[in-house]
Amino acid sequence: MSTDFASRMQSMKPSSIRELLKLTEQPDVISFAGGLPAPALFPVDELRLAADRVLGEYGATALQYGVSEGIAPLRERIAATMGERGIACTANDVLITTGSQQGLDLLGKIFLDPGDLILTENPTYLAAIQAFQCYQARFEPLPTDDDGVIPQAVDQLASRHRVRFLYLIPNFQNPTGRTLSVERRQALVEIAVRHDFVIVEDDPYGQLRYRGEHLPPVKSFDDAAPDAGRVVYLSTFSKTIAPGFRTGWIVAPQAIRDQLVVAKQSSDLHTSSFDQLLLDRYLRDFDNRRHVEKICAAYAERYAAMHASLTQHMPDGFTWTQPAGGMFLWLSGPQGLDTGPLLARAIEAGVAFVPGADFFPGHGGRNNMRLNFSNADVASIGVGIERLAALCAEAMAVSA
Amino acid sequence: MSTDFASRMQSMKPSSIRELLKLTEQPDVISFAGGLPAPALFPVDELRLAADRVLGEYGATALQYGVSEGIAPLRERIAATMGERGIACTANDVLITTGSQQGLDLLGKIFLDPGDLILTENPTYLAAIQAFQCYQARFEPLPTDDDGVIPQAVDQLASRHRVRFLYLIPNFQNPTGRTLSVERRQALVEIAVRHDFVIVEDDPYGQLRYRGEHLPPVKSFDDAAPDAGRVVYLSTFSKTIAPGFRTGWIVAPQAIRDQLVVAKQSSDLHTSSFDQLLLDRYLRDFDNRRHVEKICAAYAERYAAMHASLTQHMPDGFTWTQPAGGMFLWLSGPQGLDTGPLLARAIEAGVAFVPGADFFPGHGGRNNMRLNFSNADVASIGVGIERLAALCAEAMAVSA
Repeated sequence: MSTDFASRMQSMKPSSIRELLKLTEQPDVISFAGGLPAPALFPVDELRLAADRVLGEYGATALQYGVSEGIAPLRERIAATMGERGIACTANDVLITTGSQQGLDLLGKIFLDPGDLILTENPTYLAAIQAFQCYQARFEPLPTDDDGVIPQAVDQLASRHRVRFLYLIPNFQNPTGRTLSVERRQALVEIAVRHDFVIVEDDPYGQLRYRGEHLPPVKSFDDAAPDAGRVVYLSTFSKTIAPGFRTGWIVAPQAIRDQLVVAKQSSDLHTSSFDQLLLDRYLRDFDNRRHVEKICAAYAERYAAMHASLTQHMPDGFTWTQPAGGMFLWLSGPQGLDTGPLLARAIEAGVAFVPGADFFPGHGGRNNMRLNFSNADVASIGVGIERLAALCAEAMAVSA
Repeated sequence: MSTDFASRMQSMKPSSIRELLKLTEQPDVISFAGGLPAPALFPVDELRLAADRVLGEYGATALQYGVSEGIAPLRERIAATMGERGIACTANDVLITTGSQQGLDLLGKIFLDPGDLILTENPTYLAAIQAFQCYQARFEPLPTDDDGVIPQAVDQLASRHRVRFLYLIPNFQNPTGRTLSVERRQALVEIAVRHDFVIVEDDPYGQLRYRGEHLPPVKSFDDAAPDAGRVVYLSTFSKTIAPGFRTGWIVAPQAIRDQLVVAKQSSDLHTSSFDQLLLDRYLRDFDNRRHVEKICAAYAERYAAMHASLTQHMPDGFTWTQPAGGMFLWLSGPQGLDTGPLLARAIEAGVAFVPGADFFPGHGGRNNMRLNFSNADVASIGVGIERLAALCAEAMAVSA
């Protein structure tokens, strides 16, 4: 097979997380690696009833081709939810996507030509890096602190370069668990207006807040006029119901939305009609707000267990973020620690994490790791963190 | 909103078919426009049972994230089916896609750089044109006759130009309903080997044969060595079970498959776990072979009704293809007829079709239209063709 592939494919390597998922499926490994929501909290019985009602009542209609925008009742329901989150929109502004990951891909498809510049948090979600790399974008990683991206840095960069868009995960960021402050949300929209670029607000975790008040989305500071806005908002049912349906959505200004619909048509025609109707029916017949409260309570407990175990067992020189929601925290070791080679030994010792370097579009992050606290139970979290702490202490002793 | 979109988006217009689908939803319009399978033939009761069993027996496992390649039992089942179609492969060679449309998009993503040359039948499937246009490909439409693409033309073009791939729908082609002869299938693989390009074999309709014997797929003439092959085969459950699940598959040589998996990860992570398990369960518990026989019998009857009505009512100067399967036939009027402007009047008169020009990557096809015979019942087909014939007669009288 001598056909040479498009050159960009050279830079596309399989996601470490997904390769890891295969390794960490062994039952004796306590995995803090994946980004998996807790399956014990999926509303299986309710979804089973909803599936039965959809096929019983709508019959073949639920199984036919549909429009690329997504089914109307689900889009209406989402628009109403958006209103509760502080984003004024109608069903017409909503596009259903095959998971938020497809939202990222579609944005790459409509916005990016080879060499185009994207600003991202540093570190950021690695599958977003992958999605945009397919379109041969250049990345400019931004300095961040505990309140998220530093707006002045964005302003300076956008003064010097033509920026295509700024990609942000403002709530309980992946991988750090950090949240962007309200002041910075507003400031970033002003900077985007001034320098004429788009903000992509990726919000898969916002509803998983177990402490404090919800913050207004970046998009809530956007111009409400249908074609004047410049913030594209993405969210998903993956973390609040279940990820297996691959059903998410985008809210975008009209001109962008129209282009996204065309890109969606050519990407997969539309998202599963059956899954869309099933989710709509489940949301109609059952109280998902209460279900999300249950998820939040469980994750709060798991986070607290992880924080307590880390406090008790980690050697000096290690720090970690203390997120108010979401699924991840970010552990930082002393300079000189390299979490990459540590992973294979960790898996041998029966614990797994994602090495920090994977989340950096450029270089850096070697002394970090991402820990997921949503998928293991409290007892396993204690055991897993003890194993991890022992490894870290050993690694420090060797390098000392 | 002054952000300028990537230039390629200028050439992407919403698919006429999908815009039409909206118009032709009025109940008084008999639509031969869409590519819809007959919903009355969807195995709703069986799928309802399968959905209930999947959630009852697998529970949360059915709703979690999965691997990008697709779930193992479904891939094994597909590999076995491929063997029956004459394609030797294992589950490892199969990638589940979010409908065949995503297969086309992923192939564009891994193969195409701006300006790359693709060969297609002329006319061809318009959503394939759209998918490849996103990647700014150039199209070279190939001369075809009743036996499909003419191999000598491919050979000559590939001698003069670097060809990225040849896109083919060998069985009951969309839009013409024509089938590529066995001799040409073999000849095209030899030409692909000689000139070192890939063949994309899109086979959504192959199982819908209601007359004659199944022909060996183009891929059956491909080299069986895992990395020596050059034919990529696409198929789907959309036409043999139901399209709403958006579940299809690709069988590809190892090196291409590996790149497709990476592209799939960044496009939507994976296809709905629930839909995959549901289809697998349905195929395990019920006899879909008999179900497909039922579909074929119904479509044969509908095709026969359309052919009979056309024979009885169409004015002189009109001809049409006589497909042995699939969902479409191709009507050709005298030179000078323009089916584009005719469509609005047809919808007024209560009948719809797709104008031929939409299926031509370049120019041509104005005197043609695509007629779908799978979605209307026999009585409606008779009424619809009478309406269409009256319009055609009127158009000829005006132009005479």
